[in-house]
Amino acid sequence: MKGLLLVISGPSGVGKTSLVKKFLEEFKSEVIFSISCTTRKPRPGEVHGKDYFFVDQKTFEKMIEKDELLEWANVHGNYYGTLKSFVYENLLKGKSVLLDIDPHGAFQIKQKIRDSVLIFILPPSWDELKKRLQKRKSESESEIQKRLRRAREEIKFCKDYDYLIVNDRLEKAYEVLKSIYIAEKRKTCRFLNNLENEIKDPYLISLIRSEE
Amino acid sequence: MKGLLLVISGPSGVGKTSLVKKFLEEFKSEVIFSISCTTRKPRPGEVHGKDYFFVDQKTFEKMIEKDELLEWANVHGNYYGTLKSFVYENLLKGKSVLLDIDPHGAFQIKQKIRDSVLIFILPPSWDELKKRLQKRKSESESEIQKRLRRAREEIKFCKDYDYLIVNDRLEKAYEVLKSIYIAEKRKTCRFLNNLENEIKDPYLISLIRSEE
Repeated sequence: MKGLLLVISGPSGVGKTSLVKKFLEEFKSEVIFSISCTTRKPRPGEVHGKDYFFVDQKTFEKMIEKDELLEWANVHGNYYGTLKSFVYENLLKGKSVLLDIDPHGAFQIKQKIRDSVLIFILPPSWDELKKRLQKRKSESESEIQKRLRRAREEIKFCKDYDYLIVNDRLEKAYEVLKSIYIAEKRKTCRFLNNLENEIKDPYLISLIRSEE
Repeated sequence: MKGLLLVISGPSGVGKTSLVKKFLEEFKSEVIFSISCTTRKPRPGEVHGKDYFFVDQKTFEKMIEKDELLEWANVHGNYYGTLKSFVYENLLKGKSVLLDIDPHGAFQIKQKIRDSVLIFILPPSWDELKKRLQKRKSESESEIQKRLRRAREEIKFCKDYDYLIVNDRLEKAYEVLKSIYIAEKRKTCRFLNNLENEIKDPYLISLIRSEE
């Protein structure tokens, strides 16, 4: 496939959303954010086709049955999943696709698309993660505890990702994310898949492709 | 090993020297350039211990015999090689080491140090490479022809490198080189080898290392 599939995970509160937003702004001409499908009800302000594709349970189960999802999960009674068609169509067009999903979904993707790139965002310390969650005034103490329990479980999976980024300062973490993207596109196998776009000189192309 | 071993190759005239110089300037506190040993005579202005370690043939052959070289070759009757001790000592200290060598040497290195990173610099076109060589007024037409023949041979090996960079404009090629370096340091296996330097919080470290 011509495009690059980037999968980003990390615990709630780690600053993933800011990183992803900055990245999508800088690379908007070449990277598409994959919108998940869900059966949970929209929260105030959430827009169908922007935040999620909101579908009913029957529709979602039909998609599972027809194998239309790249990954899916049922969390607390609600389904969440990623549409195969959306991802593959963009990758084939040469667009890169970015997914923000949990480790369970990330490993489902890696199994199906071996050259997807899995990135896990870590906090600089456990206390800092707690602090960041507590700063979100909107959340109750029990909600914070729930998120911390989940963070603890998710971090245990980071070893199986391709890259780890510590989000100490946003600027620094962003530089690493951007570097991973730029470097991965220059990996030889991807470069050769895309050779005619990278190099216009037929003689040089013939030397590079040479089988001697 | 804690440090990263970067091997850069590319045909004469491609702009490798400028790229490497810029890179070593920006990362001088953490990246060391590996100085080769050679039995060829110093050219005017070349300094022992800066451009090369100049040694006599007997000394060089002793080094081969004692397996003290990471890679070596005999080019037109002169020996060239890289000292194992120099490279390993720096990598163990956590320094990254950069080598500027030809494909023959690069593949010798990759065989011995599997997680070394091989980068090949390509010209944007064959004509542009020719032009760049012709601009060097110091060289005779026959010298240019010799370099082009060699370039042709070397480019055929680029497929077996880890990354390919097209040096169209120096600034752009440099951004890719820098990105590769930053990204490779964030690969999970390297990050985990260096975990206690990256993260200071013992509780978070225990979660990351968790074997569950």
